[in-house]
Amino acid sequence: MINESCYKLGAEPSVIRSLFAYGLQQTALVGPEKVFDYSLGNPSIPAPGAVNASIKDIIDSMDSIQVHGYTMAAGLAGARQAVAEDLERRFGLPVKAQELFFTCGAAPALISVIKALAADVSSEIMLLAPFFPEYLPFVEQNGARAVIVPPDTGSFQLPLARLEALISPRTQAIIVNSPNNPSGVIYSRESLEALAALLERKSGEYGHPIYIVADEPYRELVYDGAEVPFIPCIYKNTVVCYSYSKSLSLPGERIGYVYVPGFARDAQQLYTAIAGAARVMGHVCPPSLMQLVIARCAGERPDLAAYDENRRLLYGSLSAMGYQCVNPQGAFYLLVKAPGGDSIAFSEKARLQQNLLLVPADGFGCPGYLRLSYCVSRDMIERSLPAFKALLG
Amino acid sequence: MINESCYKLGAEPSVIRSLFAYGLQQTALVGPEKVFDYSLGNPSIPAPGAVNASIKDIIDSMDSIQVHGYTMAAGLAGARQAVAEDLERRFGLPVKAQELFFTCGAAPALISVIKALAADVSSEIMLLAPFFPEYLPFVEQNGARAVIVPPDTGSFQLPLARLEALISPRTQAIIVNSPNNPSGVIYSRESLEALAALLERKSGEYGHPIYIVADEPYRELVYDGAEVPFIPCIYKNTVVCYSYSKSLSLPGERIGYVYVPGFARDAQQLYTAIAGAARVMGHVCPPSLMQLVIARCAGERPDLAAYDENRRLLYGSLSAMGYQCVNPQGAFYLLVKAPGGDSIAFSEKARLQQNLLLVPADGFGCPGYLRLSYCVSRDMIERSLPAFKALLG
Repeated sequence: MINESCYKLGAEPSVIRSLFAYGLQQTALVGPEKVFDYSLGNPSIPAPGAVNASIKDIIDSMDSIQVHGYTMAAGLAGARQAVAEDLERRFGLPVKAQELFFTCGAAPALISVIKALAADVSSEIMLLAPFFPEYLPFVEQNGARAVIVPPDTGSFQLPLARLEALISPRTQAIIVNSPNNPSGVIYSRESLEALAALLERKSGEYGHPIYIVADEPYRELVYDGAEVPFIPCIYKNTVVCYSYSKSLSLPGERIGYVYVPGFARDAQQLYTAIAGAARVMGHVCPPSLMQLVIARCAGERPDLAAYDENRRLLYGSLSAMGYQCVNPQGAFYLLVKAPGGDSIAFSEKARLQQNLLLVPADGFGCPGYLRLSYCVSRDMIERSLPAFKALLG
Repeated sequence: MINESCYKLGAEPSVIRSLFAYGLQQTALVGPEKVFDYSLGNPSIPAPGAVNASIKDIIDSMDSIQVHGYTMAAGLAGARQAVAEDLERRFGLPVKAQELFFTCGAAPALISVIKALAADVSSEIMLLAPFFPEYLPFVEQNGARAVIVPPDTGSFQLPLARLEALISPRTQAIIVNSPNNPSGVIYSRESLEALAALLERKSGEYGHPIYIVADEPYRELVYDGAEVPFIPCIYKNTVVCYSYSKSLSLPGERIGYVYVPGFARDAQQLYTAIAGAARVMGHVCPPSLMQLVIARCAGERPDLAAYDENRRLLYGSLSAMGYQCVNPQGAFYLLVKAPGGDSIAFSEKARLQQNLLLVPADGFGCPGYLRLSYCVSRDMIERSLPAFKALLG
C-alpha cells in the first residue's frame, strides 16, 4: 500500500552518507586527528563576506512582510535581472530575466527540466559517466528512461563515440556536468563543439531537438585560469541548471535557477513546461531572503585559494606515491584509480585499516575508481598522507 | 516532444494570480485607494520579532560554513527536536524528532506524502471540497487519482455521507485541511471523530489503512479561542503536513515539515517512502538558515489581532448588507455566497464595475461562492464596503 520504488530509495543506504556517518562514529572513538574523511562534497570555505552582510542589511532595512513574503513562482524580478546581467556580461549572450526560473538549488532545477522533457514513458535522457549518482533516480522516478554512456577513462572528456552509439530517436536530452563531479575535468571547447555537431546532425535526422541540460554548480570553481565554455554559446538548444551551493558556499540555502535561452528551439514551450513541472512538484518560489541575497550578490565569486592548495597537495602527493589520479581542473573532487582495480574492496580496506574514507565511484558509473572530496582542511590532507602510503605497501 | 500536462499546467492562467496582476495594473491606472484586492493569501502581519532577531544572531554568532551548509536530508537534529517538544507539550503526544521530516514548506510536504502513498496508478486520494485548488495537480501529477467529495454547503463541516459514498478499496488517503482554505471553518472534534470511526470501519473492511493527511498551515490562525483538534490525537493513521508560512508569516522562506506519528500503521515504511519521494523530487534539506530559526522559534506564535479585526469587520459588514457569509473561525479567508448564484459572473462584475477583486471558489470545488482573503489592511476593507454595497443595488 506504499509506493515501492520510493520506499526502496528511502531505505537504500547512500554510500557517501554511510561513510560520513562511520567517520563521525570513529572520530568519537579514536579522535578527530586519526580519521581522514574525503566523503562529502560540502564546501569548506565560508560564503563571501558580502552574503552575510547582505542578509543583515536586508533584515535591517527592508519591511519584514516583503522580505519573507511569497515571490512570483519564477522568482523576484530583481534577482532574475541581476543574474541575467551577470550572465550577459560574462558570456556575451543577450540573457533576459524572463528566461530564468529560480529554484531551490540545482536538484529541483534539474528535476523540473527532466519532468518537462519526459514527453512519454519512452523518453530517454542520457547520462555521461562519470556522473552524480542522484541523476539516476531523478530521471527514472520522474517519467523518463536513463541511458548511461560509459566513461572515456583515457581523457575523461566527453565519450562521444559511445554516446553516438547509444543515441536514439527517443533521446530528449543529454545531461552535461562540467566541471565534472567526480572527475574534476572541464569538458574542452573542442569536445563540446564536437558534441554540438553530433547533436545537430542527430536532431536533423530524428526531426526534433535534442537538448543539452548543462548542470553547472561548479562553473566558478576552476583553477589555473582554465576556461569553462558556456554551453549555450556553443549549442543553442541548451538549458542551464545552476546552484549557488558551491560558488557562494550556500549548499544548505537551496537557491539556484534554470536558464532557458530564448534562442533554444521551442524555448517558450519548454520554459512553460518547466514552470508547470516546478508547480506540480512544489518547486516554485525558492527562499525569498536568499533571492534577495542573490539580487545583491550575483556577481560575487569565491576565494578558491584553499581549494587550490588542497588540490595541488593531494594530486601531487598521491601521484608521487604512484596513485593514478585524474588531474582536476575544477570542482573539488579528485578521481583516483583504485590500486588493484577493485574500488569497493580498496575503499573497505582504507576505511578499516586507516580510517581513510574514500567513495567508490561505482555509483558514479565509473567502477574501479575512487572519489575524494578535497573540500577539507589542509591539515587533514597532510595527516592522511601516511595512510595513503601505507595502503600501497 | 515536451511533457503535455506540464506544459498545460505551466500555461494555465491561475485565477488568483490573474486577479492579482489585474489589481496591480489597475492600481497604476486609477490609484491604490480605488482598488480592493482580496485575491492573494499572503500574510499581512510581520513575522514575530524573534524571527529576525534570530536570523541576525545566527549570522553573528555561528560559523558561516555551518549556518549555510547542507543539513541531513530530514533536517537538523536541533530543529526537529524543538518541533517535537513543541508538539508534545501542546498536544500531549509522545512526538520524537525522528518522526519529523523537514521540507521546503507545506506543498513539498504534501507532495512527498502523496507520492509515497501512490502505490500504483489506481491509488486514490480524496479531496474534500472546498479545497485548495493546487491539491488537484499535486495528486494527479504525482501518480495518484483525485476523488473529489462535494462540499456540505450547509455547515461546511466534513461532508461525511458523500465521503462514505465515494470511498473505495483504492482509497489511500483523505486530505483534511482545517482551519480550512477557503471557508475558514475549523472541523469540529465531533465531525473528526465521526470521520475517524468511518475510516476505521472502512480500513477494516478493505484490509488496509486509510490515512488522513492533515494539511495544517493555518493551525495557529484561530479566533475567539476556538479549538483546532490535533488529528493524530483522534485518528492514529494520520500524517501531518505543516508550514511556518502563515503561523510565522514566512511564506517565502519555504520551511515546514511532515510528521509521521510512530503509532500510525506502517509508520516506519511510510516515513521511509516519504524520504524516498522527497529525494527523487529534490525536497531534501530545506533552507538551513530557516531550520536554525525554527530550532529557536518553534514555540513563537503570531499576533492575530489585525486579522481578527479584519474578520469581524468584513463578516459583520457584509452580513449586515445581506451577503450570505460562512462565519470563519480560523485562517484568513471569508467564503461568501455569490448573489445571483453565478460566482464567475459576480467576480467579473465586481472587478469591472468596482475594481473589487474576489476569487470565484469554483476552482476550490465550491461553485457559487467567492473567496475573500482578508490578510489586507483594515483601511482597504473600510474603503471597499461601498463597492460591496453598490454590487447589491
